[in-house]
Amino acid sequence: MSNATEHEQALQLAARVRKAMLQDDYATAHMGIDITDIGPGCATATMTVQRWMLNGHATCHGGFIATLADSAFAFACNAYNEITVASGFDLSIVAPAREGDVLSAVCSEQNKTARTGVYDVEVRNQAQQRIALFRGRSYTMKGKPVVA
Amino acid sequence: MSNATEHEQALQLAARVRKAMLQDDYATAHMGIDITDIGPGCATATMTVQRWMLNGHATCHGGFIATLADSAFAFACNAYNEITVASGFDLSIVAPAREGDVLSAVCSEQNKTARTGVYDVEVRNQAQQRIALFRGRSYTMKGKPVVA
Amino acid sequence: MSNATEHEQALQLAARVRKAMLQDDYATAHMGIDITDIGPGCATATMTVQRWMLNGHATCHGGFIATLADSAFAFACNAYNEITVASGFDLSIVAPAREGDVLSAVCSEQNKTARTGVYDVEVRNQAQQRIALFRGRSYTMKGKPVVA
Amino acid sequence: MSNATEHEQALQLAARVRKAMLQDDYATAHMGIDITDIGPGCATATMTVQRWMLNGHATCHGGFIATLADSAFAFACNAYNEITVASGFDLSIVAPAREGDVLSAVCSEQNKTARTGVYDVEVRNQAQQRIALFRGRSYTMKGKPVVA
Repeated sequence: MSNATEHEQALQLAARVRKAMLQDDYATAHMGIDITDIGPGCATATMTVQRWMLNGHATCHGGFIATLADSAFAFACNAYNEITVASGFDLSIVAPAREGDVLSAVCSEQNKTARTGVYDVEVRNQAQQRIALFRGRSYTMKGKPVVA
Repeated sequence: MSNATEHEQALQLAARVRKAMLQDDYATAHMGIDITDIGPGCATATMTVQRWMLNGHATCHGGFIATLADSAFAFACNAYNEITVASGFDLSIVAPAREGDVLSAVCSEQNKTARTGVYDVEVRNQAQQRIALFRGRSYTMKGKPVVA
Repeated sequence: MSNATEHEQALQLAARVRKAMLQDDYATAHMGIDITDIGPGCATATMTVQRWMLNGHATCHGGFIATLADSAFAFACNAYNEITVASGFDLSIVAPAREGDVLSAVCSEQNKTARTGVYDVEVRNQAQQRIALFRGRSYTMKGKPVVA
Repeated sequence: MSNATEHEQALQLAARVRKAMLQDDYATAHMGIDITDIGPGCATATMTVQRWMLNGHATCHGGFIATLADSAFAFACNAYNEITVASGFDLSIVAPAREGDVLSAVCSEQNKTARTGVYDVEVRNQAQQRIALFRGRSYTMKGKPVVA
């Protein structure tokens, strides 16, 4: 079997994982987050900043920027069809996001062993300005998001 | 003027900051977060995990645990009436939170200089089980949340 | 068998782990770090800041403060006699340490599951001023530091 | 004045900062760390793992990997000739380094404002295997490493 076919199968599996995970992911739906891209170890999530996401400084609450990045991370690290959870993450906020901004979170795998992984997410706004840097730590458990 | 009076004044100022910040903090309101306690450098926030906060593993989305902790952090570090923002934070998730869980986030100041600070938040559920550990990094700007 | 005896056995095991680990820990020896206390999930390490530890600002290099804290962390998380490594850590430096300062790093376990753990280390100088806050992430492998 | 000339001046200034910082940086010298490259916001540091750098698992002590990365970070963020210190960093260790390994730490600026910055460092061994990921947080003070 060719490598091209293997890669295509990995993409198809990732797409099936996305579909299965989205069915029960009320949080991602509530935030209006779209998982626009997914592959083995990578995912892109987008979100428009709503008025209800603003804190007292009229900028997007840091927790919601984390939520967007964490969703991209969750889809990226589950895309292999192994149940994987976040054990933690670090977020650096480098610029404010404001009402109406369209944020994109691009997640890429930095390291993966049998049980643990490190994933970086970069959050940018519609003008490609960097809003935040997120580094997630994953832990893989037994079980599969979708039955093969 | 006695120390007791100074402390009382600090508590009154913190209470006024809370009131002013809550007026425009749509995010904290949307999450149903209550700021149940506030003082100079400290705050407690509580939140009940709603169904819409669940991710695909039927546990509270890590981003929302971060949001709760980040709100406690924001009120704690603005309580001196100096406008202070989060430059970042680290979150360790140590146990899952489930629908209906009542989470408490207790924030305490670890360090504060003129411009920067370090704040720890511990998130526990109604059974006092530890759910997450959060360490926030603050940056103080010019300006005051409430006019004296 | 009483709890008191179990605790005593845990302390004796930790002491044996310390002895075994120190035999091959060239790094801890090179830094002049003493492991002055050890028990299940906790350890204290001390170090005097030498001239060769100073950076260009005449303060102790942040990497060496991390080294002291990381040693305390390593002994604390191996004290159960299960081989455990650091998967990472976060360090916040809150005050400078200078030549001749005697630093103490006190490590306490915050969370421990079968495979992963979270440990906090507080570094203070001889005047009990806080120098740094360290949060370590551990990963437990198969194998034992000492044969029972 | 052309941009090319401005860039050349920035490189010359960075080179002068390196020279001035190295004069008093006993820690970097003690570790045998070479600053092989420096420019505005970036630096590369190399180090050979010596026997005295090993911990009880016969791998390079995590604190020394942090020291290498922190040195690259320090030179990168001071290269503008503004005195800048580390307020903290996060380190993820993804593979062990062993005696004789030649490690390279490449630091690149991710964000910089008047006072604060975020810098990423990637540490690899001689086989280009990734050993660690470091994310440093900087704070710029008044003063200059070299007099203009």
